[in-house]
Formats: sequence, structure tokens, C-alpha cells
Amino acid sequence: MSRARVHNFSVSLDGFGTGEGLSQDAPFGHAGERLHEWLFATRWWAPGGSGGVDDAFAAQHGVGIGAEIMGAGKFGYPGWHDDPGWKGWWGSDPPFHTPVFVLTHHRRPSIEMEGGTTFHFIDAPPAEALEAARQVAEGQDVRIGGGPTVVRDFLAAGLVDHAHIVVVPIVLGRGVRLWDGLEGLEERYAIESVVSPSGVVHYTFARRDQS
Amino acid sequence: MSRARVHNFSVSLDGFGTGEGLSQDAPFGHAGERLHEWLFATRWWAPGGSGGVDDAFAAQHGVGIGAEIMGAGKFGYPGWHDDPGWKGWWGSDPPFHTPVFVLTHHRRPSIEMEGGTTFHFIDAPPAEALEAARQVAEGQDVRIGGGPTVVRDFLAAGLVDHAHIVVVPIVLGRGVRLWDGLEGLEERYAIESVVSPSGVVHYTFARRDQS
Repeated sequence: MSRARVHNFSVSLDGFGTGEGLSQDAPFGHAGERLHEWLFATRWWAPGGSGGVDDAFAAQHGVGIGAEIMGAGKFGYPGWHDDPGWKGWWGSDPPFHTPVFVLTHHRRPSIEMEGGTTFHFIDAPPAEALEAARQVAEGQDVRIGGGPTVVRDFLAAGLVDHAHIVVVPIVLGRGVRLWDGLEGLEERYAIESVVSPSGVVHYTFARRDQS
Repeated sequence: MSRARVHNFSVSLDGFGTGEGLSQDAPFGHAGERLHEWLFATRWWAPGGSGGVDDAFAAQHGVGIGAEIMGAGKFGYPGWHDDPGWKGWWGSDPPFHTPVFVLTHHRRPSIEMEGGTTFHFIDAPPAEALEAARQVAEGQDVRIGGGPTVVRDFLAAGLVDHAHIVVVPIVLGRGVRLWDGLEGLEERYAIESVVSPSGVVHYTFARRDQS
């Protein structure tokens, strides 16, 4: 069975998955890199990094993944669709190495990158996007890559089988919230949590009705 | 030095310290008892309860406390001030055993209860209320007892020395948020967290500039 999975999705203590004031120079707005410092400090991210619980969770990101779905706000800065040359933040060899479906009202031709990543641009509701991703995932899982609105929409639609959410002990105060509209989420998931020495709390949500 | 302390203050994963639809029959609205099940399961709360990390934190509630400050919404249901006989939720011997200052625009004469609790009703901003509480705390600490609006206001005013916040893995979706307006709180506090086997995460905030 191909599962839909969320990995390494970081929010602040007050539930913001990105800050305010997003731009080409500030992909996470006033949050800066603070939501992801725990990730950058892992061996998975870079040689010499930590090898503990943060690394163990981080490394699950790509295992068994055959496609990703991301929002327009993850793919580019506000207004990227007016830039025909924009190919994402990640250079010529993006760290996905699979087909990536970008959810956007501004469709454009697919872009084939180095290393196996191809960006497809689709305008579809969550269930339809997931179906499209599964068709190219070759039996593997589909990662729901974010941002917060996309993760929230897929959770609300009951389409996520496994979610790894990381709560960073900072209060952002403003930005885009992850948890809105997800009342009663705990009824559908077995939830575990563990504190890392880095100070973040890793939550995993495993769908109860999963076969 | 008399410190201002928050203890056993529970919020949902999405940051709500109480639910929606508060009434005399539902002090926490649609949240019911779900924010406090971890507390009710401790030995501190009742004989036969658990004796682990939840109990250790819970038991700090009264130690070294000489007065409490609480909001009108903790003292009574919406509309309690129209009921001259309302003396709080806690029966004839409330579990405070100190003077308690109720912040309300509807002042009334103090009520002396059994067991050392006296309710005083004052209409004052946070700093002034804290000063009043310290004057009767006999050198001991003052507990900021909640609800969420009161804890938030005292945190925002920089008046809290130590806070113990418990994050319960449920998504309430609606109610009163704790974290609003507290951007950058982490800059003023050393934050620790620990996961309990019960599933809640205990956060402690210790003020950095504290002597």
C-alpha cells in the first residue's frame, strides 16, 4: 500500500509553520531559519552533524518515497509565477529525486531537473493530487511536503497516513498556522512524542485505521 | 525574593487553554476534562495515582506559594457576577489555602472560606495585582493561576518568573489561546521540555534575568 507521509515538518510552539513577510530573500519570513536549525544540525543534513534522535527522524524523509506534493508557497516566493525562469529554491539538483507535484492555479509546463526531480504543476484538490502522485510513485509512498496550508488541507481531508511534526520551542506570534481546522485530529491518530536534547519535540501521528 | 509562578497550566497542541462554550456545567467548554486528565491521574491529585514525572510537576503547585491571582473566568462561569451567592467551583474548602485575588470589573466584598482561602475581588492591571498579592503573601511566591488570558497577560507584561505549561496531544480547534501576542517569549526564558509516559509534554520557562 502506498502511504501519504509528512516528514520533518516544523512548527513553533504557537503552531506556525512559516512566519510572516515571505519573500525571495526570506523563504520563511520573520521565522528565518529558526524552525529548521534542529534539522541543519543533523548528520543527515550535513557531514559532522548529530547522530541522535533528530537525525533518526530526519533521515526518514526520503526512504520509500516515490513522489512529493508541495504547495505553491513552498516552491517559490510570492509572485514566482510571474517569473518564467523560476525553478525553485534548490538549484539544478533539488533534494527530491522524484516527481514533485506543485499545487498552483498558475499551471506551466513540467520542468525536468538533474538528479531525478521533475516539477509538475497542477491545479487539483488534495485527493486528486494524491492520486496523480501515486500514479507515478511506482508503488512507493507520497510525501506531503508542505507548507502549512498543504499539510493542513491533506490532514483535514483525511489523506495523511503518517505525519512527523516537530515543535520548536519558539513563539513566532504570526505567520501561517498548521493546526487550524483540525479539531479532533487525535481521534484518528495514535500520537507519540519524544523530546530531543536539541530542545525540539518530535510528534508522530500514525493513522489508527491503517491496514 | 518572591517569584510569580505558573503551574500545571494545560493547553492543547494547538494552544488552547480552554475550550468554547463555557458554562456552569462545562467549566472548560467543549474541552471537557481532556486538558487535565494527566493531572487527575497523579498521586498529588488523589490517592492511588501515578508517582512519576506528572506527579512531580503537579506537586509543585502549592509549594512556597503565599497567594494566587486568577481571572474572573477561572473563578466562575460566564455571568457568575450576577449571582451574589457564587463562591467559586471548589466547595467550602477550596484547594488554595491562601488569599486569592480574582481579577474582575465586578468587585464585591471579600469571601473568607474554610482552610485558609480568602477570595478578594480587584479590578487592577497585572503589575498592580501582583503587588497586592505580594503584600499578603508573607514573602512567599505568587501563583498566576489562569485562565489563559490571565497567564498570557502576565507573560506579556514580563511579570512571570517561572512557568510550567503542559501540552496535551489533542487538537481543540477553538477556545481561548495561550500563546497569542507572546512573540519572542523564548528570548526571555530558558526553556526545558520533557515527555511524560502519559503523553503530555511538560515545558518549563525559567526567566533568564532572574537573580
